[in-house]
Order: sequence, then structure tokens, then C-alpha cells
Amino acid sequence: MARPTPLSGFPEWLPGERIVEQHVLDTLRRVYELHGFASLETRAVEPIDQLLRKGEIDKEVYVLRRLHAEDGDAGLGLHFDLTVPFARYVLERAGHLAFPFRRYQIQKVWRGERPQDGRYREFTQADIDVVDRDTLAFHHEVDLPLVVLEAFEQLPFPPMVMHVNNRKLAEGFYRAVGADDPSVVLRAIDKLDKIGPEKVRAQLAETGLSATAIDACLGLAEITTPDASFADRVRGLGVRDPLLDEGVDELVRVLDAAVTRAPGRLVADLKVARGLDYYTGTVYETVMTGHEDLGSVCSGGRYDALASDGKTTYPGVGVSIGVSRILGRLLKTGSVVSSRSVPTAVLVAVDDEESRSVSDDVARALRRRGIPTEVAPSAAKFGKQIRHADRRGIPWVWFPGDSTVKDLRTGGQTAADPAAWTPPLEDLTPCITEEKPS
Amino acid sequence: MARPTPLSGFPEWLPGERIVEQHVLDTLRRVYELHGFASLETRAVEPIDQLLRKGEIDKEVYVLRRLHAEDGDAGLGLHFDLTVPFARYVLERAGHLAFPFRRYQIQKVWRGERPQDGRYREFTQADIDVVDRDTLAFHHEVDLPLVVLEAFEQLPFPPMVMHVNNRKLAEGFYRAVGADDPSVVLRAIDKLDKIGPEKVRAQLAETGLSATAIDACLGLAEITTPDASFADRVRGLGVRDPLLDEGVDELVRVLDAAVTRAPGRLVADLKVARGLDYYTGTVYETVMTGHEDLGSVCSGGRYDALASDGKTTYPGVGVSIGVSRILGRLLKTGSVVSSRSVPTAVLVAVDDEESRSVSDDVARALRRRGIPTEVAPSAAKFGKQIRHADRRGIPWVWFPGDSTVKDLRTGGQTAADPAAWTPPLEDLTPCITEEKPS
Repeated sequence: MARPTPLSGFPEWLPGERIVEQHVLDTLRRVYELHGFASLETRAVEPIDQLLRKGEIDKEVYVLRRLHAEDGDAGLGLHFDLTVPFARYVLERAGHLAFPFRRYQIQKVWRGERPQDGRYREFTQADIDVVDRDTLAFHHEVDLPLVVLEAFEQLPFPPMVMHVNNRKLAEGFYRAVGADDPSVVLRAIDKLDKIGPEKVRAQLAETGLSATAIDACLGLAEITTPDASFADRVRGLGVRDPLLDEGVDELVRVLDAAVTRAPGRLVADLKVARGLDYYTGTVYETVMTGHEDLGSVCSGGRYDALASDGKTTYPGVGVSIGVSRILGRLLKTGSVVSSRSVPTAVLVAVDDEESRSVSDDVARALRRRGIPTEVAPSAAKFGKQIRHADRRGIPWVWFPGDSTVKDLRTGGQTAADPAAWTPPLEDLTPCITEEKPS
Repeated sequence: MARPTPLSGFPEWLPGERIVEQHVLDTLRRVYELHGFASLETRAVEPIDQLLRKGEIDKEVYVLRRLHAEDGDAGLGLHFDLTVPFARYVLERAGHLAFPFRRYQIQKVWRGERPQDGRYREFTQADIDVVDRDTLAFHHEVDLPLVVLEAFEQLPFPPMVMHVNNRKLAEGFYRAVGADDPSVVLRAIDKLDKIGPEKVRAQLAETGLSATAIDACLGLAEITTPDASFADRVRGLGVRDPLLDEGVDELVRVLDAAVTRAPGRLVADLKVARGLDYYTGTVYETVMTGHEDLGSVCSGGRYDALASDGKTTYPGVGVSIGVSRILGRLLKTGSVVSSRSVPTAVLVAVDDEESRSVSDDVARALRRRGIPTEVAPSAAKFGKQIRHADRRGIPWVWFPGDSTVKDLRTGGQTAADPAAWTPPLEDLTPCITEEKPS
């Protein structure tokens, strides 16, 4: 077999990079579980007709076929997000779930897109959602972004800033200035950053909106504040509407909470639209400082009907983190690194093959106290055994012959008892650090 | 959307079952990392020609096609095990890896099989392997099964017993009694449990083997011992061969280590064949006591050529645990259960919606000390809030009004300070217990 080459769009990490990814996923899990979110995994496949219900992204779906099946396609495709499977799971298992149901879900998803920077064909998403039956209390729209921001603060990432808007605010405003179909305005405003205000203005004019109305819509889109002061600026535009007022009040509650609980990490940004039609309240987008070109790395919102079986409707609010998109960038640029490529904290040297069991005993004594330990694979010269550790970033080497342990970072070597010695706590796991660009 | 129904062969767990699965996977990970195995994940897809190299299982492969691609199949299929992708990864990344390379890999795999009890179309495997360049020291064949057995001892499973044989022993023996192609004998012996000794005898007679030789082969297959005493019984059969002797010596080393380090959990079983041709040394199979009908739930062996690029060959030894097969059985029969369906240890009650922020503050204080905490979703009557906790198995409910905390199991309620109170350590995570059948 010739040496294979990587498949474009299907990222795979080296062991040290995988340790960074594990650290990120472990941190997300820890914070989510601290807030009482239950883990969920759904199967990788869904019936194709379910995957195509949203129409817009049908050509990205990977369809499955059994190689030698006579019946052609199995009627199954790989999921392209975690929202469609979650909605299906909630309907299927509703009788076994307790509502409101808080779940997180960290899994791979697949899209047959053309690979490019920050876009993969296989990538990991980390979603959290709260879903309830019939009605969902508003406070979840305040709580959810704060959980995600709490997780980001514990991760070796550049500062994440969440941009938040409210669909009621936008739709109420657009209707009040004369838009028959506010979703058309929303989609035009969504392109502001990409095509600029003049082209957006032209698009809006085509919909029959008056010049005054267009000025008002663009004025609204300009408003962004780090606190609830956006409300005064909206009122200053002189548009009055009950739905607009409701949206403003909701967004004020989100900002008021964020100012104390996640200062500097959440802003009201009234041009945030999110393309997807099913959002009905607060919507979230997140920019990674210094990597604005990646677009939103963490998005979501409130939806009144995540799922419905005709009798019962399940409203929810959810946010999805594009873990691979973030890590792809930070690992490629070397912005986050692990101090070692293995979990091992101690390598136990081997004097000669006859006494390997002595080294095994030392290793067992260390492991019993939770210290990740390897035994040297061969009784090579000690210099070679030390290089074995050094090449992997293993900080400590144990010599059973004279029962000493050597710190490879300082070169210091001291006598130690395998039944009692413990390395500094921070050596037990690899150290993940953010490298500041110099 | 009508209520969907489950897809046969694609298991999905309820939240409480998922907590059991997380506990199992966390335990495997902890033990593997204690022994210095690095985590690895490979992409879900491989080029179809790579997946088909082993011939025998081609019809089980799921092939991918982009729904609207003009070019038909993308030439990719879903991996059906973790060995093929690992071998490809080693070749592809050899220049970036440090050998011997110890990795574990816990991922889903897919097979288009007809679903039946214990057989899934999507399931989770947990593999560990050690792979080296050119040569691999024998002691890894002793170490690896002990790592896996150490993990099993910490899991809420019925006793696992590993059955071990050695390919050199078997092949040397079969050749010495006159078999030209020992793999033919191996495949016949592999069917012993299924078709019985008489039919195996008939199959072996067809290969031209003498009656005496067949008696010897069946005599070898009968030998199973919990220690190294199998060696005397093999010698008692009167067959002499250098490869046989080498195999016996190797298997003795495995048994000698296991007798002290995993007593009662590993037996020499000289009928263990493992179907796959690429094994060349120790081979492993594992039976879950009381669930023998599942077949082997953890298998593997030594292979001299896991991968080769023509210049360099990579020998290895590995074992794969069928996590879904084990859990499917134990969860279905209710043999392993979680004390709760959420990670939450404390539910903070809400007096009324106006004072929700008081409850939020209590929750924050508890989480700061690592206590998974939820705030009640609505300011319902306390009875209803308590039922919310009870239904999920949350053990503690906090009442911010009078700053008391109630143990739902005993009914006891005491005054507590959110900045200082901590539940018993064992309440911090769900308790996973093995239910003994009554």
C-alpha cells in the first residue's frame, strides 16, 4: 500500500492536537453538566425525506447505499446538523423524556460541501438546547447564552463576543415601517456585511419599501451596544409597534443579565438576522476576536416549533458551537498547543529486559494513585529512554535501579518512593496553552 | 410530522442510559490514559478500495453519494471497524508519530448487516493498539490484555473472561502433524463451538489429514487452563516443533503475568482461532459471564503487518471492545442503571418569577464549587418543583427563601449556606449500579 494522502475536507488531528480537542470538549461537557444539561447522542443517519424538509441545503447531504444491496439506496443520509436529529428524537421519545428537557450533544456532522478554509465535509458540533412542551419560559433565552459564554471563558480561545438580536424586535419594526413580508427585509439586512448598505438599499427598494422606511431599517441595523442602551436608540427612530416593544423588552433582559454575568462578551447587534426562518425570538451569533473572517463560530436562537407531531408542539432555544471551525483555525496557526502528545506523566525506565517486572511494579504503584505512567518499551541505553520521554513531552522519568525520578525540564533528579511520590498536580494532565502571536 | 419510529439496527439511548454509556466510556478512557495510551479519532470515511482490501466483508460497507452530485459515488464508504482507518492513519502520518505508538480510539462504526440481537448497523467500538516500526517487542502482547482486564474490573459488568491462544502454537502444531495449510485447520477448529467435533472431524478428513493427526488437533483444541499448566498438556500430546515451542513459551508468559495481575480473568484456550488471517501471535477473545450467547465482546491479537508502505512495515497488537454489544444487552435487561437521568445534583427552587435571580445566585455559588445545579424552570408550587427533581432522580432541592436544602431520599431538610454547603461526594455524579437479577 502506497503512502496515503489526506482527504480534503475531512480533518484529522495528530495526537497532540487531539489532546487540545479533548480539553475543549471536556471543558464544554463539564460546564454544560454543571448547568444540568444531559448528554445525548443520536444515530448518524436520518431518513432522507426528513433531512430534505428544510429544502435549502439538499445538495449537501451524503446519501448512503449498501455496496451490494439490490434495493439501491437505503433511504438514509448522514445528518448535516444536530438540530434535525434532536427534533426527531424529541418526537420519537417524548413519552420517555421529562420536560423542559435540557440536553447537550457533541457529535460529528457531514456536509458534501466544497471544502475551503473553515468549511469541512466532516466536522464536530457542540449543541445545547432547552426544549419544552407547548410553551417555553423566556428566561431560558437569557440563561442559554450565559452558559456558553461561561464555557468560552474557560477555554484557551481568543475572546468570543456574542452578537444578539431579537426576531420580534426586527419583525415588529419592519412591519411597522411598511414591509409586508419582514423575512424579505431580514434576508437583505443579513447581507449587509457582505455587500454593503448601498446594495442592500437597492434590494429593499425593489420590494417597494419607501426611502424613509429603508432609512429606518438601515438605521436600526447600525445599532450595536454593549448594554441595554440600544433600547433608547431604537425608540429614537420613532417607530412604534407592540411586537417591536416586546422584542426590545426581551433583548433588554438578555443584555441586563450579560452586563453583570459576562461583561464585555455579549452585545446587542440589531443587524444580526440568522438566515433560518424558524427563529422566533432571541437570535445569537458569535465572533472570535481576530478571526472575524471565519464568520459566526457559535449561533442559534429561539424557535417556537422545534418539532410538532400535530397534537403537541415543542418550542426551544438552542446554540451550536462549530468546534472544528474554531480548532481548525487555532491548531493550524499554532495558537493553542499541548505540552505533550501523550497522557503520560511518568516514563519508568527499564534497566534490562530481565528486570522489566520491577519497572512494571513501579508503574502500577504510580497508576494506583492516578498518575498516568508508561514503562519504557525497551531496555535501551538510558539516554535513549530519556529521549523517548522527551520527544513526547513526558515531564518525568523514573529510574527503578536507584529509585530516583528525574524532571526533564529542570534536569533535577531526586530519590523517591513509588508508593508515595506524586508529581505536581499540574503535571498529571497535559498543559494546554494559548500561544500569543509575537 | 407524524411521530417517527426507531430505525432497526441504529440504537439510541435515553438520557439515563446515555449516562451509563458515558460512565463506561469515561472509565475506559481513564484506564487507557493511565497506561499512556493517546486518544485518536479518524474520519468516518475511507476510500472504498481501502475498505474492500479485506474482501470478505465487502457487502457490509455503506457507500456515500452526494445527493445532487453529477459524479455519482464520491468513492468513499463508512468505516466498518477502527483497524483499517488506524492502519491508514499510521502510514499517512508516520513521519509525525513517535514509535512505538500507543493509541486508543473510541468511535462509531457502521455495517450494513441485517440487524439482530447484539448486531447493529451503527455501533461504538473501543480499541487500543500498540504499533511499532519494523519490530514490536513481545511484552506488549502480555501488557495489552491486562490493561483491558483492569478496565473491565472497574466497570459495572458481569465478570469478563478473556480466552487466549497463540497463532505460532497452533500453526506449529498443525504443520507438525501434517497439515500443509494450517489456516484451513484453524478455520475448521474455529467452528467447533458451532458445529461440534464430529463435523469438524469430517471437514478435516476432507483436507487429507490422517485420523491420528485429526485426533491430535481436536485434542489440542480441548485444552483450556486458568494458568500455564496448558504447556504440560500440550507436551503430553507428543508433538514437537520449534514454532510450536515458541508459541507455547509466549502463551506461558501471558498466563504467568495474568495469574498474579488478573486472577480468574484470563484463561489459555487452545481452540480460540479468530477468523482473520493477519494475526501472527497471541490472539484474544472475551466472554461476558452469563451472556455467552453474545459471542466474543472483546477481541484482538498480534499482527506482524498492521500496515506497510513497501519500505517500512508496522507490526502491532490490539484489542477491540464491542461497547454497543455489551451495553445493548445490559441496558435492555436493566442489568445496569443510573440513579438519575441528568447530571444535576441540586435543583434550586424558585419562590416567584420576580426573585428568580436569587435562585440563580444560589446556583452560581454551588456550581463554583463543582456541584451540578439547575434552577427550577418555573415558580410552580413547591410540590411540583420537588416532583421535577424527583422525576429526574435529582437528590437535593434547595429552597432559597429560608436557605434550606432537602434530601429527597430521606426527606430531611436542614439550613445551609450556598457558599459553603456541599453534598456527599458520591452525590456529585449519578450513581451507576449493577442490578443483580433477583
